[in-house]
Amino acid sequence: MFYFTIDILGTIAFAISGVLVAMEKKLDIFGVFIIAFVTAVGGGTLRDLLIGNTPVVWMRDNIYVFVIIGTVVLAVLFRNQLKYLRTSLFLFDTIGIGLYTLVGIEKGLAAEMLPLMCIALGTITASFGGVIRDILCNEIPVIFRKEIYATACILGGTSYFFLRKLPFDDQYAYAVAILIVIGIRLLAVRFKIALPSVYSKDRN
Amino acid sequence: MFYFTIDILGTIAFAISGVLVAMEKKLDIFGVFIIAFVTAVGGGTLRDLLIGNTPVVWMRDNIYVFVIIGTVVLAVLFRNQLKYLRTSLFLFDTIGIGLYTLVGIEKGLAAEMLPLMCIALGTITASFGGVIRDILCNEIPVIFRKEIYATACILGGTSYFFLRKLPFDDQYAYAVAILIVIGIRLLAVRFKIALPSVYSKDRN
Amino acid sequence: MFYFTIDILGTIAFAISGVLVAMEKKLDIFGVFIIAFVTAVGGGTLRDLLIGNTPVVWMRDNIYVFVIIGTVVLAVLFRNQLKYLRTSLFLFDTIGIGLYTLVGIEKGLAAEMLPLMCIALGTITASFGGVIRDILCNEIPVIFRKEIYATACILGGTSYFFLRKLPFDDQYAYAVAILIVIGIRLLAVRFKIALPSVYSKDRN
Repeated sequence: MFYFTIDILGTIAFAISGVLVAMEKKLDIFGVFIIAFVTAVGGGTLRDLLIGNTPVVWMRDNIYVFVIIGTVVLAVLFRNQLKYLRTSLFLFDTIGIGLYTLVGIEKGLAAEMLPLMCIALGTITASFGGVIRDILCNEIPVIFRKEIYATACILGGTSYFFLRKLPFDDQYAYAVAILIVIGIRLLAVRFKIALPSVYSKDRN
Repeated sequence: MFYFTIDILGTIAFAISGVLVAMEKKLDIFGVFIIAFVTAVGGGTLRDLLIGNTPVVWMRDNIYVFVIIGTVVLAVLFRNQLKYLRTSLFLFDTIGIGLYTLVGIEKGLAAEMLPLMCIALGTITASFGGVIRDILCNEIPVIFRKEIYATACILGGTSYFFLRKLPFDDQYAYAVAILIVIGIRLLAVRFKIALPSVYSKDRN
Repeated sequence: MFYFTIDILGTIAFAISGVLVAMEKKLDIFGVFIIAFVTAVGGGTLRDLLIGNTPVVWMRDNIYVFVIIGTVVLAVLFRNQLKYLRTSLFLFDTIGIGLYTLVGIEKGLAAEMLPLMCIALGTITASFGGVIRDILCNEIPVIFRKEIYATACILGGTSYFFLRKLPFDDQYAYAVAILIVIGIRLLAVRFKIALPSVYSKDRN
């Protein structure tokens, strides 16, 4: 129940981030819905395709489509109020990537993938919805340019495999790894930490 | 035989729409072919990937590749005459999305998908070839911006599930649903109907 | 062992071409890595998805990820020296597309695809990593615009099916077809041969 709630909150946060980008591009309401949809489910879809886990996860239950339709309707109606929710949205989104990273890793483990591939699948689950959103909106994906985002997924995902070796129940490792993803992302945004630039020297 | 004819006419119409967009971008002949190809088969390919129906449909028969090669050669040779065919092309295209919508729904039913997902699969089959075409040509997909296109697929697809409950043979429901998709699209273009804008208030 | 060496050299060359494009777009180090990665494995991934050969090939062995990480680190560190390696890189890349074309064809044959589809799969394996690279970097894919690249794959791939009918061992056909791809690409670049333009008449 707890996981389900977080999953739905993450879906909502991702969908709203899609609505915001789509409305900036002045898409029509169908376009806004599609962008919201791919932002929310795109990462999990790519993960399922890569490991051959079809039909992909959102096709097995109507709940995702309904939640995203509801989110889009409300987000469009109350679009002028969305700016007051910026902090809550950021929080949902951050909790969302924490959970999605670990969900992706667990799916990888269930498909007997190597640990490195599980971390890749977790990162894809959490971050490639946003990549597809940006491609559809004709932008270079934002996570390739400036944010500590995928990096938080990779570090949190890696920590999970170390934590699992400790003499505790795997569920603790799972929860702690989620918190590590969330913590790194919060600290990075709070202290404006970006990946070290590889271009500085070239600019002299 | 009737369905096969429509399928091929739809493929040709979609391929030509790809040729037109690709030539506007001054792609070379290989690029024109690839864009024509993904426009014609991209929607069905995405549908097959999502439900795990591989190898995807166009790989199982050479006919699609040959029809698209022939279409591209003729369309490039007679590109100056294409403008006189605009009405015929629009008609093929519209018949094509009607049929493709129902083909996608049937594939979804065959894979035991939920009705909502079948409608999504039908819409994807009919409209995502054009989305991939526009992405490859570095444009925001046109169906996200202004046309009643996917909406016709969604409404026609939804009607199919109601029509199937009527005490007639399913084939009638199938044919009527195709006509509904075609009818909505024709009316929308004839009367310049677009989705209600969600931006008008913001412009005041 | 010979094939493995060429495979790794091809991966390195493709990854470096990704690094070069990504750094031109001023992506951060994570973005550079992802672009290098999709350039190197994107073609094989699409091929595996289309024939339903999942999990896709790079997920089954850590070697590709490690090779690409190493390549990205070295390419970024020595980016100012890369220009001196231009000829070597072009050679690796050309050898890479030759081998990748035949690898893709063999995978198609193993999946009992039609010859035409095997050639398509070979061409996809060799060239679609670069297509995905360009899409992610918000460019119209370069192979749609000017290079003899996919054409070399198609001609070499086609020749393989004729060569296999000769009374020699299939391995010779395999090796000769690779050389044909490489030869066509080298000649095209050396003599600046492009596909015949379909636009010249329109410009008068």
